[in-house]
Amino acid sequence: MTPEPTELITGIRELTTQTDGAPRLADAALVIADGRIAWIGPASAAPAADLRTDVGGRAALPGWVDSHTHLVFAGDRAAEFEARMGGQPYAAGGILTTVAATRAATEAQLRAAASRLRQEAEAQGTTFLESKTGYGLDLASEVRSARVAASVADVVTFLGAHIVPPGIDRRDYLDLVTGPMLAAVAPHARFIDAFCEVGAFDVEESREVLEAGRAAGLGLRLHGNQLGFSGGVRLAVEIGAASVDHCNHLEPADIDALAASATVATLLPACDLSTRQPFAPARRLLDAGASIALATNCNPGSSFTTSMAFCVATAVLQMGLTIEEAVWAATRGGARALGRDTGSDAVGVLRVGGRADLQVLDAPSVAHLAYRPGVPLTWAVWRQGVRAGGHSPAPLPA
Amino acid sequence: MTPEPTELITGIRELTTQTDGAPRLADAALVIADGRIAWIGPASAAPAADLRTDVGGRAALPGWVDSHTHLVFAGDRAAEFEARMGGQPYAAGGILTTVAATRAATEAQLRAAASRLRQEAEAQGTTFLESKTGYGLDLASEVRSARVAASVADVVTFLGAHIVPPGIDRRDYLDLVTGPMLAAVAPHARFIDAFCEVGAFDVEESREVLEAGRAAGLGLRLHGNQLGFSGGVRLAVEIGAASVDHCNHLEPADIDALAASATVATLLPACDLSTRQPFAPARRLLDAGASIALATNCNPGSSFTTSMAFCVATAVLQMGLTIEEAVWAATRGGARALGRDTGSDAVGVLRVGGRADLQVLDAPSVAHLAYRPGVPLTWAVWRQGVRAGGHSPAPLPA
Ligand SMILES: [Zn+2]
Ligand SMILES: [Zn+2]
Repeated sequence: MTPEPTELITGIRELTTQTDGAPRLADAALVIADGRIAWIGPASAAPAADLRTDVGGRAALPGWVDSHTHLVFAGDRAAEFEARMGGQPYAAGGILTTVAATRAATEAQLRAAASRLRQEAEAQGTTFLESKTGYGLDLASEVRSARVAASVADVVTFLGAHIVPPGIDRRDYLDLVTGPMLAAVAPHARFIDAFCEVGAFDVEESREVLEAGRAAGLGLRLHGNQLGFSGGVRLAVEIGAASVDHCNHLEPADIDALAASATVATLLPACDLSTRQPFAPARRLLDAGASIALATNCNPGSSFTTSMAFCVATAVLQMGLTIEEAVWAATRGGARALGRDTGSDAVGVLRVGGRADLQVLDAPSVAHLAYRPGVPLTWAVWRQGVRAGGHSPAPLPA
Repeated sequence: MTPEPTELITGIRELTTQTDGAPRLADAALVIADGRIAWIGPASAAPAADLRTDVGGRAALPGWVDSHTHLVFAGDRAAEFEARMGGQPYAAGGILTTVAATRAATEAQLRAAASRLRQEAEAQGTTFLESKTGYGLDLASEVRSARVAASVADVVTFLGAHIVPPGIDRRDYLDLVTGPMLAAVAPHARFIDAFCEVGAFDVEESREVLEAGRAAGLGLRLHGNQLGFSGGVRLAVEIGAASVDHCNHLEPADIDALAASATVATLLPACDLSTRQPFAPARRLLDAGASIALATNCNPGSSFTTSMAFCVATAVLQMGLTIEEAVWAATRGGARALGRDTGSDAVGVLRVGGRADLQVLDAPSVAHLAYRPGVPLTWAVWRQGVRAGGHSPAPLPA
């Protein structure tokens, strides 16, 4: 087998590595070999390689880790969005519109639509992405959704407990989700999740679902405290979830609980804007010592964006994060929320021996992500060492 | 002289024309000939043309009209931006940093930097753009800035009254701006403007500058009420300015005055976010009957974006505009603010005989501009009938 050509990426004015020891380097270079980082250091000391890409003084950083999406669905809900912008409040029930469209679609259609969103995300710098099921909500449709998710996402989360679908008794549905549906989906999934919210599932129902998932070998995550003080955050911490997502409405005790735990608070600013919820208290969470992640929550109802850069810009401009904090939350924070923060397959970090998942911005520093909101700054993207997006020219032979 | 080939653009699922009679058509097509629209109507009735572009069910609309930018400058102020995000308040004095860098640059450097921003804007759907001078602030540097602005922008505004530069007495500077500098810049400019704000110019000084510009044959515009109740809005209405820009702090009497006038209130949401000012009261202005425009205010200090789509999304998500109102304000509203709303060279509108300045979104409706915030949706752009941006394939022979 012929080895892949090695590639030197040089001319990096600012390299954000997100390593604990040297999170940011000036005038740096790196070498990619076999999908991994083989060398990182000063541009002046860079070794030779088969290919050479001079990024001309631009900034490089890990690819975005989008730790919360719902990519497997059919149809859109632009009309519901427009009604909401006209004053209609957001409610969980709109999910059923997407469930009906998703069940009516073929698996090939679902795969094509999800794959298009994945490509759209990758073109904007996202190199690692979670997707949930949750628009099937019967056994066959959830298994199909999990297969589609596994074909386009890096991490699959089983969200049978998104909402109780019509035509089935609430208790019967919980038995289905925690029994046969879980058994059928678990082989395709890494995590289980529940929508702990008014109109969806309460704390005790969510606990039952997550405990069943744990017994089936899945990691735990939870949608909590999006529309009110649901108790979801406390539940997530108590049962050791990897992440609790949304966190718009937090009591001081919720923040204390998160700060004292390993559970990541995953914040979804594009969703907050699109549902007119108050932003999650990002600053208070960080000041208390909690870990946070930023993610898109890409879905057709409450947050139909794939743009991690938009989430980062919003977090800086409107949620009080520094640019470094926001970029960390959108890379290594997302990795931590997915349990991929450490080890040889860690993502959201650039270090020798690790995955070569990185992006180059058409800007000299990451500050431009918030300084230049809305401008598409993705210049080049490598996923596991292979060029995957951006608008820069092709690499040159060295 | 060989005539340009005519081009049929068909498969437009939703065509926003912004004409008063038929502002939106479904399943439409249009024909471009010699840089103008030769035909608009139902796709089923479209005539033949030399080239044919089927946009596959996407939405088309006029190109953005960005009626407020400051494109002629050198350097950036990312450090000041980061300090501001850390809590430092915005103040007019930061302008002097850019003045020093601009004076030190060559004309070729200024032209290259401004041209790059113009191209960045065009790639995102902006087909008509105003740029101000105002980072030269001595006679030679302002004339040079006006020449550069004229080479990259469609409309040039003289903003010698941006701030009083160091090393010159205030009264002497006003005499310079309203005398020799105005005389030297006026041949390159269409409008005069002043920054009516604490730390810049007061109402009477601004009035003196604008009246001098009027006497030199220029149209009038004004920066007003950005950081407080400066009286700028009342001045702009009183002297018949085409536009008063920012409008963050408005008393009821300001809104009444705008509603009773032909002066457009130009709102700059990206600037509001980047300076942490309250958003302008867009909804109250529209409800009172005032005309509004949305613009980027692209400049290195208070709003370093070229993205009109970001402004539209922010106006819908956070300022209470409907998508139709926001898109109108970013197209025909901008044209009105520049006095280009009517006549054969009107912009921001698509009608037979008018300029073929249009964009196609990678989306079925304009609602997606707010429904999918941050996602680069520009699929194709034509400026005066010539393909200018976007990522769609080339047109096919018909
Ligand atoms: Zn979600
Ligand atoms: Zn301005």
